[in-house]
Amino acid sequence: MKLKMMYSFLNSDLEIIEKTLEETVNANTSILRDSSLHLLKAGGKRIRPIFVLLAGQIGQYDIHVIKKAAVALELIHMASLVHDDVIDDSDLRRGQPTIKAKWDNKVAMYTGDYIFAKSLEIMSELKKPAAHKVLADTIVEVCIGEIQQIKDKYYFEQNVRDYFRRIKRKTALLISASSLVGAIASDVEEKHQKKLHKFGYYVGMSYQIIDDILDFVGTEEELGKPAGGDLLQGNITLPVLYAMEDEGIRKRVSTVHEEMDREELLEIIELIKSTDAIDRSMKISNAYLQKALDAIADLPKGRSKTALINIAKYLGKRKF
Amino acid sequence: MKLKMMYSFLNSDLEIIEKTLEETVNANTSILRDSSLHLLKAGGKRIRPIFVLLAGQIGQYDIHVIKKAAVALELIHMASLVHDDVIDDSDLRRGQPTIKAKWDNKVAMYTGDYIFAKSLEIMSELKKPAAHKVLADTIVEVCIGEIQQIKDKYYFEQNVRDYFRRIKRKTALLISASSLVGAIASDVEEKHQKKLHKFGYYVGMSYQIIDDILDFVGTEEELGKPAGGDLLQGNITLPVLYAMEDEGIRKRVSTVHEEMDREELLEIIELIKSTDAIDRSMKISNAYLQKALDAIADLPKGRSKTALINIAKYLGKRKF
Repeated sequence: MKLKMMYSFLNSDLEIIEKTLEETVNANTSILRDSSLHLLKAGGKRIRPIFVLLAGQIGQYDIHVIKKAAVALELIHMASLVHDDVIDDSDLRRGQPTIKAKWDNKVAMYTGDYIFAKSLEIMSELKKPAAHKVLADTIVEVCIGEIQQIKDKYYFEQNVRDYFRRIKRKTALLISASSLVGAIASDVEEKHQKKLHKFGYYVGMSYQIIDDILDFVGTEEELGKPAGGDLLQGNITLPVLYAMEDEGIRKRVSTVHEEMDREELLEIIELIKSTDAIDRSMKISNAYLQKALDAIADLPKGRSKTALINIAKYLGKRKF
Repeated sequence: MKLKMMYSFLNSDLEIIEKTLEETVNANTSILRDSSLHLLKAGGKRIRPIFVLLAGQIGQYDIHVIKKAAVALELIHMASLVHDDVIDDSDLRRGQPTIKAKWDNKVAMYTGDYIFAKSLEIMSELKKPAAHKVLADTIVEVCIGEIQQIKDKYYFEQNVRDYFRRIKRKTALLISASSLVGAIASDVEEKHQKKLHKFGYYVGMSYQIIDDILDFVGTEEELGKPAGGDLLQGNITLPVLYAMEDEGIRKRVSTVHEEMDREELLEIIELIKSTDAIDRSMKISNAYLQKALDAIADLPKGRSKTALINIAKYLGKRKF
């Protein structure tokens, strides 16, 4: 089943989200409008808005209320991508030049700030103090994670716990905030809120591990950027950590640096792929996926629960 | 009278603000803690918190409620300074190395993000939806202003209206938001809220014009950075625009560029100072100051109103 088929009952609502996203970032300053729309049009799975809406469906769902939260979550995510591309010096995202590549780092910094400010503006129309608190706390953690990620770069002595802490802040917290904020916006019962919150967290962990695996096994076409980019940028992911348990591989991987030859990097990637590191990483991702499914096992039955289950499974098995 | 004497009845409350600022930015990540505290310790007038508190004093004042708004406003201001220093490539602020100088642009970008996120976190504890809306709208405008400032750099064809629009977004809106948010936090009557809002706006305009004048007439010691820095960075301020009404000066000023010789720059600064541009700019600042005083003329009498008047006058006459 294709991803979009899993929540086709949300199609008209997702069109509203897409339209609101575009209206929200539309600025009367041409650089900001162009750069923001450039990013928006590059697409993305809109996982966060979808989770907001699906969690909201468990309660008193009103698209004109919940769309504010859905748009805010996607914009926060987009803003963080723009700043990440500055830090990672990335020129390509989703097969498109990044803002920092198409304009420059300074424009990217302020575009990120602007998109983030716009997310606050639309969020401020949602009169749910609890949701604001969740988002603010999450954003603080995401920022701490971003600075941690800089510190951890090319630090080959790090361990699996460092990695999990990092992807929690990088990915899992914002996805789990999406399902929680969606639930709060729709006045979902508190016991169910907690389940949705956990569900988002586990899906986020599983999702990021897959992402990190794909950076090794995906093709340039599938990834929209050259494979092995994470490692080249000094981002030590789960497959790398597992592969480095072999002392020979550890020595070889530790030589990775920004200016490394593409061919040499490809050799190291092949070395990592020749171990059981990818398989073991997949198993961990699957374990998180299972925890996610367990978390919502006793949510009320319905198309929304079914969709959450299917999407989680899809994300846990995806190829790009 | 010294600035601090004008609101000495707030001394113990301002100590609470200072302590809360420090607690708020304290992170368990060392780079973020060090960089944020470095900025905090460099000082500043804390104009925004003072305006929050003084406006709050007109209503139901509770320091433990209003401190959240006061700290949030100062942090938003600090975050914007950190990002501005990246854009302006500034190495000194308040006589101290900037974060981008002491660490680098990437650390500065995330430190700004982090301080900003922390401001949202403390703000989210204030249960006043109207205040959140004001802040979010203000931040969007500030971001638009920042991008506009990049576009306007070294653009010698700009006019006085461009300048006013820029300083409104750069300074006036956040100061006016400070007094409005302080008023909202203390449930000040709506008719007085409007006056305080206007007051903050006019004081902010007056304040920024003085700041731009000081960049020409201040000494390096007073400014904490070399004089003429704005012009060198391509930031065309009111004195420059007035001086450029003379065709000869316009031609000379238009040659300014980032790599210009210090001596050549100093000549141009002297040229600008030899005209009536500084005087005329002072007059405009004074006119805004008068508008500020008029705006709060019929606020209820009391030490808070007196303090607002004195501070406005002080800021309008300050020498550094």
